[in-house]
Amino acid sequence: MSRFLSGRFAGLEAYVPGEQPQDMQYVKLNTNESPFPPAPAVLEAVNAVEVSRLNLYPDPEGTALRGKLAGLYGVEPENVFLANGSDELLNFFFMAFCDEERPVAFPAISYGFYPVYASLYRLPATAVPLREGFRLEAQDYCGIGKNVVIANPNAPTGRAIGVEEIEGIVKSNPDHVVMIDEAYIDFGGESCLPLVGKYENLLVCQTFSKFRSLAGGRLGFAIGDAALIADLDQMKYSTNSYNINRLTMAAAIATIENNEYYVENGRLIQENRAYTVSELDKLGFETLPSQANFIFTRCPQVEGGALYRALKAKGVLVRHWDKPEIADWCRITIGSREQMDVLLEKVREILKEVG
Amino acid sequence: MSRFLSGRFAGLEAYVPGEQPQDMQYVKLNTNESPFPPAPAVLEAVNAVEVSRLNLYPDPEGTALRGKLAGLYGVEPENVFLANGSDELLNFFFMAFCDEERPVAFPAISYGFYPVYASLYRLPATAVPLREGFRLEAQDYCGIGKNVVIANPNAPTGRAIGVEEIEGIVKSNPDHVVMIDEAYIDFGGESCLPLVGKYENLLVCQTFSKFRSLAGGRLGFAIGDAALIADLDQMKYSTNSYNINRLTMAAAIATIENNEYYVENGRLIQENRAYTVSELDKLGFETLPSQANFIFTRCPQVEGGALYRALKAKGVLVRHWDKPEIADWCRITIGSREQMDVLLEKVREILKEVG
Repeated sequence: MSRFLSGRFAGLEAYVPGEQPQDMQYVKLNTNESPFPPAPAVLEAVNAVEVSRLNLYPDPEGTALRGKLAGLYGVEPENVFLANGSDELLNFFFMAFCDEERPVAFPAISYGFYPVYASLYRLPATAVPLREGFRLEAQDYCGIGKNVVIANPNAPTGRAIGVEEIEGIVKSNPDHVVMIDEAYIDFGGESCLPLVGKYENLLVCQTFSKFRSLAGGRLGFAIGDAALIADLDQMKYSTNSYNINRLTMAAAIATIENNEYYVENGRLIQENRAYTVSELDKLGFETLPSQANFIFTRCPQVEGGALYRALKAKGVLVRHWDKPEIADWCRITIGSREQMDVLLEKVREILKEVG
Repeated sequence: MSRFLSGRFAGLEAYVPGEQPQDMQYVKLNTNESPFPPAPAVLEAVNAVEVSRLNLYPDPEGTALRGKLAGLYGVEPENVFLANGSDELLNFFFMAFCDEERPVAFPAISYGFYPVYASLYRLPATAVPLREGFRLEAQDYCGIGKNVVIANPNAPTGRAIGVEEIEGIVKSNPDHVVMIDEAYIDFGGESCLPLVGKYENLLVCQTFSKFRSLAGGRLGFAIGDAALIADLDQMKYSTNSYNINRLTMAAAIATIENNEYYVENGRLIQENRAYTVSELDKLGFETLPSQANFIFTRCPQVEGGALYRALKAKGVLVRHWDKPEIADWCRITIGSREQMDVLLEKVREILKEVG
């Protein structure tokens, strides 16, 4: 840090995104991207006419895209907030609703960005331990009297909880905002979007980066009570009014119009997930039940870090964290059947090598 | 605001971007966009191959684009920071470097977002009055002992100051960061980028939204001492690591590779500016000397707000602020010769109507 940086950032440790190596081609199973390209209609939507209009600012309100999302999820446009990726949205959540008097709670093992936001804004934050088997227990958040952020399915575990459990958390914390981060909801979890009309303190966060094959386009969105959405808008218009570019808006609209393509891809991912888990079972791996496009798994013979390094040396990238509670484990993105077969082949080689 | 919004945002007034009406086609001279589309090579760069890769995250470090910008401006990649539009960059400046102990100063009449950031972070902020004729006097900032943000050329006036004057400000405030916002520098001003290697407390902010015809793509960047750039990176990796999408990076790289196209467009804008000013002179308007792609002008017969409304009714959008000091004036973007002729025709009509 320079000597000019404000003292309030002393000790801030930024988020470390999954490796995006530019040096060689890996089978990339480390950042939960979709193996499928966007729908053909997205390629058509981002055309020369759209590019030739890039001299003009985008619509700061994103009216057309918000309307499409509202239609897809049966809400009104004023219930929808658009962000430059769901990280921007999460940042606004911590910024807008949390402070000294409004502390925040999130699972002790979850998306690594949550504690970074808490540190950035110097918030009183509670990391709620998971239970046996990395299970998230909704009761631990009921009546907690803090703002709550929960990833459902949780990352990096892949485990999901049900809508009634979420309703219990929302209902029992009426004076605090509950943010449910549904980045991975479309791979088999049950969305709590139907609760939005019922509770004024619920925000649901989703992203186009996983199920909708648009990680490179950067789009996240929140759905919630209009007053909460207006607060998020206040944050946006006080930091960066034109946060979504024209091409991303065009791509996202075409994405929503071709929902079936993504539903079918999601089905394939779930198929590949079941296949991968069953093959790893045969090799003695222990894998948590996953409702996401990744699995959290450990090998009895090879520690997590060693497995990560051995796979990387063989051209397969997975994700591993050097945190004691999860150091045995690797998170592996579920890609195409071909990618999973390469992974399994390399795992078998490694197991042979360690004898 | 909802009852959940943190009390520290009570009284925050967000920035109001220039109108982007979706109802009808206007001659849009209100948000300083370029009238020229991106270079043909940009259309080629944002192609089906790039779009088909949107399932993958962008390079969070923007290595290729930072390298291109570094090459263009003769600095190293570690001197370059990329932002989702220069507003995001300005936000990071106020967030990173300003606090209770490090107050900030900016011109009392300037880009309307500066006071919004100051209010957002509850900063002690000094609005330094302009001098006679909306002239910015560098002496007013020398040894001021605060962080400084200056738009050069200034907005909405269009007036610029020279590099020696900026050097005086930077040199005389060695313990504070000076941010020079050069959004409009390529329309005739003199960039202070050559000072970057000399001073560790200077940040230069530029944008692709004006001269480079990419307002719809959202790209801003800072050039400065590597330690300051690392601080900005710290803000980015603590809020939104993947802040620039793939298509914007591809478009921006092609933009830099086709610099001559934009230089020629900039020349045309300066020609159209001279033409517009001289025609408005003939109609009795008073126009400030401008080094930007807009002019700040007033009509002796018609007050600024009335002129804005009369032009809008005739299909021409310009920008007007209801602030007493500048209520007489309108800011008019310099577009194509055809657009300026429409503007002038409508102005002549209005002058006839008021008789």
